[in-house]
Order: sequence, then C-alpha cells, then structure tokens
Amino acid sequence: MTRPGQLEIKIRLYCGDEIAMGPGKADLLDAIEAEGSISGAGRALGMSYRRAWLLVDTMNRCWGERLVETVSGGSHEKGARVSAAGKAVLTAYRALQQGAETGAAPLLNGSSLTVLMRDAPLTPGTGSRRS
Amino acid sequence: MTRPGQLEIKIRLYCGDEIAMGPGKADLLDAIEAEGSISGAGRALGMSYRRAWLLVDTMNRCWGERLVETVSGGSHEKGARVSAAGKAVLTAYRALQQGAETGAAPLLNGSSLTVLMRDAPLTPGTGSRRS
Repeated sequence: MTRPGQLEIKIRLYCGDEIAMGPGKADLLDAIEAEGSISGAGRALGMSYRRAWLLVDTMNRCWGERLVETVSGGSHEKGARVSAAGKAVLTAYRALQQGAETGAAPLLNGSSLTVLMRDAPLTPGTGSRRS
Repeated sequence: MTRPGQLEIKIRLYCGDEIAMGPGKADLLDAIEAEGSISGAGRALGMSYRRAWLLVDTMNRCWGERLVETVSGGSHEKGARVSAAGKAVLTAYRALQQGAETGAAPLLNGSSLTVLMRDAPLTPGTGSRRS
C-alpha cells in the first residue's frame, strides 16, 4: 500500500477508548458488502474470523445503529450486510479522509518535507555518523 | 491523549519503506530540543535509549541533511540538538498535521459520524446481538 515518498494519513474516530471507525474497520465494511458475510470478508482481508467478528462487535457497540446486520442460524453465520447506517458512516468516513488529504496536500508540495527527503534511505546505522 | 468522540489524525511520511517522519519521531525531536540529548529525550518519553537512537538513525538516513546532530566522545553521547534542517522538517510536519485537521473538521461536524456516534460504547459482546 505504501509507495516511496508517500504521505500516509490515518484517521481514527474514538468512542470512549474504543476505535469506532478507522482504516481497518472501513476496509472490513467494504469487504462485508462485497463478500456478503463476516467470514468471507475476513478471508478476503487475510484476517481471522474471530478478529473480523471483534471489529464488527466494536463497531456495532460504538454507533447508535448497528453498522453490520447478520443473519444467524444454528452455530454458523448465514451472512452479513452493511446497514444503511453503516453505509452512511462509511461514506462520511471516506469523505473525512479525502478532506484531510485535500487539506494537507498544499502544505506538502514545495515544503521542506519534499525538498529535503531522500529518494531512498541510507543504509541502517549510518545516520549516527557523518555521511 | 484520547478523549471520548475524538478524531485522531496520524500522518506518516515514507522514504522507501521507512517512516521518515511521523507522530513519534516528531515528539522525539521536540524532546531532544528540550532535553539536549537523545538519552534525556528517551527518558522524558519513557523510551529506551536504543529505541530513541534507532528513530534518530532512521530520520538521519531518510533526509538529505541530518535532522539531529550529536556530540559524541568516548563510548557515551555528550549531547544532541535538532539541526536547522530538523527544525524546518518538524515545522513543516506540524503544519501538514494542522492542514489535515483543518481540512477534515468541516466534514466531521454535522455528519453521520457525529450524529450516530454513541457517547460511550456498549458492553463488549453485545454488538453481535440485537440491542
């Protein structure tokens, strides 16, 4: 995901001490919508079912409406979908990310950050000596 | 550092696969300037000397000029200071952070993100059931 010289902006929204929305949860919502289940979304993201389930549980506890609705039956999940509230939160979160990037971009271009950055880092250990 | 409902924006600048500047390195530069040494800065931040030294080494390898200048003698560090380049990079990084926050703020206020967020999360485990 990271390219050389890249700017990375990560946004997290907290509800108390819990992360109500962040990059991982937003990607999980996208994957649930695409895969139709929490287990499928977890597989698509290389995440254990338990991990995906815990992220969904956290989201559903942090917001006034459930972001993910599951169809359960017996001991197995039958499927899951992102609720209307989930889609609204996801859209607003992506817009927030875009706003942050748009706000930061003009301060990056031409600044000391781009002028002084090397194309690639020097060899580890050399930063403590004269180069 | 985190308040309920808080928006957290973390900015990282990559040089190749290394983080050339981020929240931890920026705080370390501030601490080095305040304490006058890498070891003192590490102590002030509750960070081992080795960890602080590695962060300084990474910074000094990622930028065209050294961000931290050390005075060494024998086996011990005699002191360190943030260079003019380091101050320029730190100032530009803080401005970038401010720009991202300014760009994001209007998209947070009044959005689904603030309307739907609970004041506090529900009890763990309840997010998977009807509440």
